[in-house]
Formats: sequence, structure tokens, C-alpha cells
Amino acid sequence: MYKLVLIRHGESTWNLENRFTGWTDVELTPTGVKQAMSAGQLLKAQGWDFDMGYTSLLKRAIHTLWLTLEEMDRTWLPVVKDFRLNERHYGALQGLNKADMAKEFGEEQVLVWRRSYDIAPPILAANDPRCERKDRRYAKLDPLAVPLTECLKDTVARVLPFWNSTIAPSILSGQRVLIAAHGNSIRALIKYLDQVSEQDIVHLNIPNGIPLVYELDKDLQPIRHYYLGAAQADVQGVPMAEPSKT
Amino acid sequence: MYKLVLIRHGESTWNLENRFTGWTDVELTPTGVKQAMSAGQLLKAQGWDFDMGYTSLLKRAIHTLWLTLEEMDRTWLPVVKDFRLNERHYGALQGLNKADMAKEFGEEQVLVWRRSYDIAPPILAANDPRCERKDRRYAKLDPLAVPLTECLKDTVARVLPFWNSTIAPSILSGQRVLIAAHGNSIRALIKYLDQVSEQDIVHLNIPNGIPLVYELDKDLQPIRHYYLGAAQADVQGVPMAEPSKT
Repeated sequence: MYKLVLIRHGESTWNLENRFTGWTDVELTPTGVKQAMSAGQLLKAQGWDFDMGYTSLLKRAIHTLWLTLEEMDRTWLPVVKDFRLNERHYGALQGLNKADMAKEFGEEQVLVWRRSYDIAPPILAANDPRCERKDRRYAKLDPLAVPLTECLKDTVARVLPFWNSTIAPSILSGQRVLIAAHGNSIRALIKYLDQVSEQDIVHLNIPNGIPLVYELDKDLQPIRHYYLGAAQADVQGVPMAEPSKT
Repeated sequence: MYKLVLIRHGESTWNLENRFTGWTDVELTPTGVKQAMSAGQLLKAQGWDFDMGYTSLLKRAIHTLWLTLEEMDRTWLPVVKDFRLNERHYGALQGLNKADMAKEFGEEQVLVWRRSYDIAPPILAANDPRCERKDRRYAKLDPLAVPLTECLKDTVARVLPFWNSTIAPSILSGQRVLIAAHGNSIRALIKYLDQVSEQDIVHLNIPNGIPLVYELDKDLQPIRHYYLGAAQADVQGVPMAEPSKT
């Protein structure tokens, strides 16, 4: 049996400011830093250990991983950073305030963008200063692989090849894997692992900075999953009804 | 022409306490943290950029790299950590106070351990609690590859294969490389690059947290080297006469 641990990054500045974030590279808040450190302390106290980490190219996830590893005295572990673990791209909404958008376009439209599986927000123009196609960290990719917007379905479509090509083989080779990622890249993994429906996955809330353990059989089929620590009691079942804040 | 930047880690707790450190995994002091941040600020202000980082398996170097990258907004860069960039192993002296050792064994003997190219300190017993052969981070290595002591010659012998197999090819492939390492693993690289004699290399002092730039020709032969920032004026020539504190 294998164990995989997923952590959504700690609270970010734009979580706090209620702004759509997506691929915008915002920092953890002091609360987010504490959440990540607590995750590491909890994992260490419970005797968890890892052989490697995976994270995105966004600092709120990278720093969450670093802080977690630091508390576990495991900063020396190999870490692979890959854009395919990035948050869902939020298109032209990136940076905008969620409440303002609700006023401008109506609650219902914003809910569609936030909660539909296959309807993406309006695209970010390729010449928009916010567009990541100019960002050096994605320079080696085919520019068309850098999204201008994504629905969750699109995020699933990029996360799964990375799971199949890289993460799953490393788990099968016996490595104990820790993944620090984002609400929607983690949703993408959970949807695949637990075969969650398109209707249910959009309502699944992933709390910030709480280690989520998946026990997997020899074929990486999930046996069970659970959160560590305070959230443990809440979440024996997927999906949870609680609305997500992503 | 290629450019390579080397940084010795910032001040560590045992630098401050005047203890032999070697492979002991001690943390940066607050001064060391500031040195690493200053290095990143300086590199950023001068327009330097990198494609990847290399560091050791020791947190004083890892954290120096992380802090430097953080100041440059480059935490997303790939980083490779390898034991072959570790500090020289200091054998049975690890953890002991340098002044105490001078009292016990005489200044001259301690200078031999600190400054001879091919005389190693007394070996650390394999059953000593300090011995790293029990440390999980080296578990994948042949136990005999985990040293019980090293002279600088031994350090050179493990650093160079890593240079040749990994770092040099990545520079030749066009990657701009930043290495955060240790006094003696950096000495090993400099000895090789600049063909410094065994007599001179042991007296070469590498300051903490100051970026050292090597300009290399198409065959990775050094054209010139210089420190950035405050130390820049001091060190146009290798070797420097100033005694090292390692």
C-alpha cells in the first residue's frame, strides 16, 4: 500500500483580499505561513516522512512546501516544480475582486465561472500585461500551452498527464510523495483518484494547509483518504457540501 | 561566453560559535540570513538572472540559495541538491570548538587539520552518533561513499565528478547556473577552474554570502572572476592571502 499526501497552499494575500488569483504569483499571508508550518509540525509529530516533493511554479505553493519541509527537517529532499500543478487559470478575472465581479456581472454569472466544470471565465488577452505568455518561467513551453483561461476540465486535462508521466511512477517506485499545490490542481487529482463526478467535484472544498492523506493500493486505486489534524473529523467523505472559496 | 555564480552560504550558528562544522547540518544565523538576502538583492539590482540552482544537502547552503532566489523572485527555478557539494567532512572534529582543540592538540596540529591539502582530521567512528552513515539523506549512497573524514583533496575528488557529469553540461547547454555551497566545495571548484596549486588553495578565503562570478570561455576555461558588491574591490586575484575561517 502507498500513501500520498496532498497540501493546498496556505492562505495567500489574494485569498484574503477576495480576488481571483489563478496563475498570478501572489505570496502567502502571515496566516498562510503559519498554516504551512503547522502542517509540517503535524506531519513530523505524527511520524510522517517523505522521499520527495512536488509543487507548482507559484510561490504560494512552493513556499508552503518549503515551510512544511523545514518544520520536518527535510529541506534536503528533492523537489520537482512543474507548471502542470499550477492553479486553474482564471482568465480575464485574474486580479479582480470577487464581490466587484458579482456586482458587475451578477452573482449567478460569477457562480458559473467559479463552479461550472466546463465553462471557463473570459479569456485574458495575449497582450494583457497580466498574460503569463511573457513570463520567463513558462518560456520553454509552447506558448499555446500557457492558457489564457481555464475551466476545471482544462485543469484536469493538464494535471493528469503530469500525474501519469511523473508522480504515479515515482509513487510506484516506492517514493513517499508530498504534493503542495492549489485548490483546483488538487481537485483535479481527487476527481481522477476517487472518480468524483463533474457535478460534485466543483463543490469539493480543499482547506488551506491541511495535509490530506490518500492511501492507495498497488495499482494506485484509493483505499481511503483523510485529513490530518483539526480537519480530520470533517472530511471522511468526498464530496463535502461546504462551498469552496477558490 | 558563459557566466557562473558561486555563493558560499551565509554565516552559520557554528561559524559564530567557532566550531568545526563539516557535514553537521547547522542553520544560518540571523546574520547569515541577511547575507543571503543581500546576495539576492544585489544580483537582482545588477540584472543577473539564472536558469537553475545547485546546492548541497545541508540547510545552511539550501537556505542561502532559497533566500537568494526569493529576493530575485526566482523561487520557481529548478534546484538540484547533491551531497557532492557538501562541505568538507571534518571527521572527529565535527562539533568541537576550534579554540578548545588548539588548547588540547596545539595550534600547529589544528592548523595542519585546517590548512593542509592532503592530511585529514581524525576519522569519525562509524558508530559515533555524529556519523552521517545513519542519516537518511545519504541512505541511497554506498555507505562507503559517506566519508568519516576528509582532507581538501578528498573533497576535490568528490566535487569534480559532479561538476563534470552535471554542472558543466548544464552550463554548456546554455543554462545560467547559480551554485550555493560551502567554503571547501567552492575551493574545490576554484582549484579546478583556475588550476590553483595545492599550497595556495588552502589559504583561499571565500567570504560568506558574496556572489563570486566566473566568466568562462566556450570550453569552460575561466577568463576572469570577480566578487559582486562590497567585496568586489578585494579579490580580483586568486589566491587571497587572508587566512580562511573554515
